[in-house]
Amino acid sequence: MKTRAAVAFEAKQPLEIVELDLEGPKAGEVLVEIMATGICHTDAYTLDGLDSEGLFPSVLGHEGAGIVREVGAGVTSVTPGDHVIPLYTPECRQCKSCLSQKTNLCTAIRATQGKGLMPDGTTRFSYKGQPIFHYMGCSTFSNFTVLPEIAVAKIREDAPFDTSCYIGCGVTTGVGAVVNTAKVQPGEAVVVFGLGGIGLNVIQGAKLAGAGMIVGVDINPDREEWGRRFGMTHFANPKQVGDIVAHIVALTDGGADYSFDATGDTEVMRQALECCHRGWGTSIVIGVAEAGKEISTRPFQLVTGRNWRGTAFGGARGRTDVPKIVDWYMDGMIQIDPMITHRLSLDEINRGFDLMHAGESIRSVVIY
Amino acid sequence: MKTRAAVAFEAKQPLEIVELDLEGPKAGEVLVEIMATGICHTDAYTLDGLDSEGLFPSVLGHEGAGIVREVGAGVTSVTPGDHVIPLYTPECRQCKSCLSQKTNLCTAIRATQGKGLMPDGTTRFSYKGQPIFHYMGCSTFSNFTVLPEIAVAKIREDAPFDTSCYIGCGVTTGVGAVVNTAKVQPGEAVVVFGLGGIGLNVIQGAKLAGAGMIVGVDINPDREEWGRRFGMTHFANPKQVGDIVAHIVALTDGGADYSFDATGDTEVMRQALECCHRGWGTSIVIGVAEAGKEISTRPFQLVTGRNWRGTAFGGARGRTDVPKIVDWYMDGMIQIDPMITHRLSLDEINRGFDLMHAGESIRSVVIY
Repeated sequence: MKTRAAVAFEAKQPLEIVELDLEGPKAGEVLVEIMATGICHTDAYTLDGLDSEGLFPSVLGHEGAGIVREVGAGVTSVTPGDHVIPLYTPECRQCKSCLSQKTNLCTAIRATQGKGLMPDGTTRFSYKGQPIFHYMGCSTFSNFTVLPEIAVAKIREDAPFDTSCYIGCGVTTGVGAVVNTAKVQPGEAVVVFGLGGIGLNVIQGAKLAGAGMIVGVDINPDREEWGRRFGMTHFANPKQVGDIVAHIVALTDGGADYSFDATGDTEVMRQALECCHRGWGTSIVIGVAEAGKEISTRPFQLVTGRNWRGTAFGGARGRTDVPKIVDWYMDGMIQIDPMITHRLSLDEINRGFDLMHAGESIRSVVIY
Repeated sequence: MKTRAAVAFEAKQPLEIVELDLEGPKAGEVLVEIMATGICHTDAYTLDGLDSEGLFPSVLGHEGAGIVREVGAGVTSVTPGDHVIPLYTPECRQCKSCLSQKTNLCTAIRATQGKGLMPDGTTRFSYKGQPIFHYMGCSTFSNFTVLPEIAVAKIREDAPFDTSCYIGCGVTTGVGAVVNTAKVQPGEAVVVFGLGGIGLNVIQGAKLAGAGMIVGVDINPDREEWGRRFGMTHFANPKQVGDIVAHIVALTDGGADYSFDATGDTEVMRQALECCHRGWGTSIVIGVAEAGKEISTRPFQLVTGRNWRGTAFGGARGRTDVPKIVDWYMDGMIQIDPMITHRLSLDEINRGFDLMHAGESIRSVVIY
């Protein structure tokens, strides 16, 4: 079949909207009509050539929502017509990682996914006879895409596509970091560095978990209003408060119970650790750092009881937890609508990247 | 009263055995006759001038066992004749940290302890009218010492002093890192870097916890035999295996569930983190690093599910947990006797430091 898609033919170039050939689903795969997709910093990170493992030409996009249109042999968990969110972190429920019940980082198809291929080692996309790589196992910048069955979460049918697509990455990453990874408890003090989309979702996750103090940190003063909208109780601008670590330790009476880095800046990651409470404070790295950058601290920070952790996809097991987060959204426990600042057509997708780079969007969504 | 003590008059000089004046216990304090004390690397670290906060002249030593001889006003938890182990990490049971139940790092007397003083801001030791500083709140290199009531753990009277003194630091630090901090579960894979006294105690803690694989890592091949004596199942010498991280990941089928650094070397701390299993492996820093040294890694290590933590005094709440560890020793659940490689008189204490620096002792104990 044919599908319209925004193709990244090479790094550092705008996406090109073209018609691709798409092979139907093989055994264990599903064909999904993508109805909406968010544009995430990770797509830009790859498109900008910052990811040393980025592959071109490829169909980027990993934050979508859509409808199953066809299933391959042996697929049992979804049927045509089901509404789904593609999962860049799949959930096979059978690998060592899934069975450990200690991580969401399913390894079933990791090797091929990292190479831009379907689990059988081939691509479904092609252009003029040349294969086009998949991206993060999703490729939601295509109106139709093929996904492994283990990489789709079935969601309720009354959830709007143009907002619930954000659950495919940003919402789950932020809210999940609080709920699944940190497991914040009522009354605890939470500090969030970076009030972009992820940071705002950390804030609303902290609010949902009943955090007693939710401190947002950003060098952009405009983000204070955004943070307060989702539950932030205190704002700190490092450009104004001087030593941000000392400021937060004082504000929180000893330090954060949990801090989150949603900036990707390794210096900020250090601050996030060091503003944690002695004895138990835990800092969770969410942001993706530039290639080659390292985090550092004095080991004394750890010996005196701080914990340094990370999270990917909010610690969520995709098929199990993503439908729950959709429920939370539909039940009004978390908000998404105000975060979707721009709605674009596929033809306007490059503008979505421009808005993001300019810091003018929280989330731009392409609607097919 | 008078007490014989080994005094550190200045850094980088041998201890001098002199007779000090010792004031009796004030309110909330106890006078303890130290019967035996271990010589720990931390004492050497201070004596060698590596601790920028080290104070002189002082009475070093923090790993003792003895008998309460006198109690000050208001002391209710011990009486003269009680056998006790001094606690460099006290347990007041009333400060924010103690009440959090999330850390053993009691802060009740931290400020004065760090300044070499008793909680009232003065010293009990003096020499020719000049005050001599306390050390880590213990000063066990003195036949008699004065301690805050919250800094003594009452232990059973049938425990020999010359072995149970080691529970005052090394045993609790190593065994507790496994049992209290990591909470290792049966069948898990544990890796220990550095098979000195702490590392051997990590090994026997891992054995006690039922670890399925206990890998010891040391560049000294003589330590293999030591490790196996306490439960080590595999030995790896980085000088022989090449890439120690890759070696351990292969040996443990994906990485350690828990790794422990007992070297104090920041490069080794990094290896200890990076040999942990993706998704859940936790590395625990025990070793004290040189001043100014920092640990580093790529944040990707954390984002993919590894945890970096630390432990002090094995996460043990001194008055609560130390008596239990004495029970474990007396019940044969852990061993101490073979680790006490040298028994010395106070006059021979400098030889104990020499043996440690030469790597010829596991633990030297001074018996009064």
